[in-house]
Amino acid sequence: MKKLINSPETVVRDALFGMAAAHPQLVRVSVDPVFVVRADPPSPGRVALLSGGGSGHEPLHAGFVGRGMLHAACPGPIFTSPVPDQILAATRAINNGAGVLYIVKNYTGDIMNFEIAAELAQAEGIDVATVVTNDDVAVQDSLYTAGRRGVGVTVLVEKIVGGAAEAGADLEHCRQIAERVNGEGRSIGVALTSCIVPQAGRPTFDLGADEIEIGIGIHGEPGRQRTHIRPAAEITKLLADAVLGDLPFRDGDHVLVFVNGMGGTPLIELYVVYGELDRLLRHRGITIVRNLIGNYMTALEMAGCSVTLLRLDDEFIRLWDAPVHTAALRWGA
Amino acid sequence: MKKLINSPETVVRDALFGMAAAHPQLVRVSVDPVFVVRADPPSPGRVALLSGGGSGHEPLHAGFVGRGMLHAACPGPIFTSPVPDQILAATRAINNGAGVLYIVKNYTGDIMNFEIAAELAQAEGIDVATVVTNDDVAVQDSLYTAGRRGVGVTVLVEKIVGGAAEAGADLEHCRQIAERVNGEGRSIGVALTSCIVPQAGRPTFDLGADEIEIGIGIHGEPGRQRTHIRPAAEITKLLADAVLGDLPFRDGDHVLVFVNGMGGTPLIELYVVYGELDRLLRHRGITIVRNLIGNYMTALEMAGCSVTLLRLDDEFIRLWDAPVHTAALRWGA
Repeated sequence: MKKLINSPETVVRDALFGMAAAHPQLVRVSVDPVFVVRADPPSPGRVALLSGGGSGHEPLHAGFVGRGMLHAACPGPIFTSPVPDQILAATRAINNGAGVLYIVKNYTGDIMNFEIAAELAQAEGIDVATVVTNDDVAVQDSLYTAGRRGVGVTVLVEKIVGGAAEAGADLEHCRQIAERVNGEGRSIGVALTSCIVPQAGRPTFDLGADEIEIGIGIHGEPGRQRTHIRPAAEITKLLADAVLGDLPFRDGDHVLVFVNGMGGTPLIELYVVYGELDRLLRHRGITIVRNLIGNYMTALEMAGCSVTLLRLDDEFIRLWDAPVHTAALRWGA
Repeated sequence: MKKLINSPETVVRDALFGMAAAHPQLVRVSVDPVFVVRADPPSPGRVALLSGGGSGHEPLHAGFVGRGMLHAACPGPIFTSPVPDQILAATRAINNGAGVLYIVKNYTGDIMNFEIAAELAQAEGIDVATVVTNDDVAVQDSLYTAGRRGVGVTVLVEKIVGGAAEAGADLEHCRQIAERVNGEGRSIGVALTSCIVPQAGRPTFDLGADEIEIGIGIHGEPGRQRTHIRPAAEITKLLADAVLGDLPFRDGDHVLVFVNGMGGTPLIELYVVYGELDRLLRHRGITIVRNLIGNYMTALEMAGCSVTLLRLDDEFIRLWDAPVHTAALRWGA
């Protein structure tokens, strides 16, 4: 295993140290328990947004802490849920009386630990609401998930609800917007290679020299189809068909397209996929009005990508366009 | 070879199609000859900045076309210089009477083709100046280079001179600032894996299961040392020592640190390296006042990173902080 790390035991801590050193104007890092919060104190009367999950998906979630997006992120060990203590401590740190919205990807460990944290916080009088993202159309149940997995739409929820929270929406309104974004978004991924979890030291799964896996999870959970490598246009069509048919998206829809790299795929390939999607959606009468292309929710150094489509309305567009200033996403600020 | 491409022959064109589709508000793509220009017409009386080089280093350079950075980029085939026709056509497209500055990385093919284009443009009455970046301290001559290679500092030149051009600096002033940035910047890279050029279909070079190469070039050109994988702290020290001793950087210096991913390295590892650099520079009395961390000048899916240090003065800081709005770099706009 060749990685730019000091040791499997310290990689998350070392990376957070680097992040704190790099962005002191944006974030503060708590070491025990581990969480990342905005450097600026919460605005009075504003709902605070908290997300978290296993590490190894960077910049998710700590890279999205900052103005217009998250107030705190709780990183667990690589591909492992954070524990309730972390979540509770972060909740206390960011609560300003208007309540805290948990944005949780649908994985069994995360669901359980965020639920426990929510109960503990509520016992302390902190108002907590939770939204669970489950946008991955690939499979119904999965290795670490009952129901669908939460993937790319999580980034979009964090941005859009971040805009709403910044504008003063109350906790119930924030929760409703988050549910609506999750409801209007669908995703699917493809892996060209596996990744190596540092503590395991070997690939999570094996793919043949010409094999790809459609519907892969962001921890390498099995997808829906193993097939051979083929032109990007065909792979993109497989991904798009799965996503489009599920909601379903329709002629006349306005969408945000998110082409997300899994960590080991060069940007040039993500633009090839985006170009194919543009052609394909145009052909179906679906208009792309916003897009996001890059490595935002990764699976360590896995090669591959995921495609997320979100059906947009005017409120989503306005909140998507609202200023954001985080380590990984920045505009208008 | 597994890549998200349609074919080795069309990958650059397909990616540019995707880029044009994704960012119509930022760029226009010319197909024959191939170049990328800003969507907004050049401001009257402003110097125009043009860069280019082989593809496979995305987002460099097309991802840096936009307000506050480049006016045009000329992408060649993967790892191959653009030809004079492309450069000349782009030069004509962006010249507004105040002249065009070519920002050229020091590789033999690029130097030759940009020189020819400059002569042709000058014969048409267009004022052209050129700056050549050669910041890589790894080796003196290299596979495609007489003298040092141009690497990470190129991104910093494009941003800082972009700020100057936007503010109305004339061609000679822009050229001088570019020379100064190049003179005050030093870089070195490390590879953990090779990359596969699509048209070749096999790795550019071979590295053993536990081997890394210090001083690698962005096309896989040989570095200065093959060694075994070791903790990130030690690798970072090897890189930092090479860079620090070369200028040399001194106690009291204020610097910008650029930790650049080679394309296949996850962000979590880049933050580990940044954290080590922060510790190490602090210890030497060098203050990091700006930083940039991410995949900005890649070598397809190579795993590894490069480290660039730029000694800052007030003018550099002011121009670095100036608004920029490109596909790959955006702030204040």
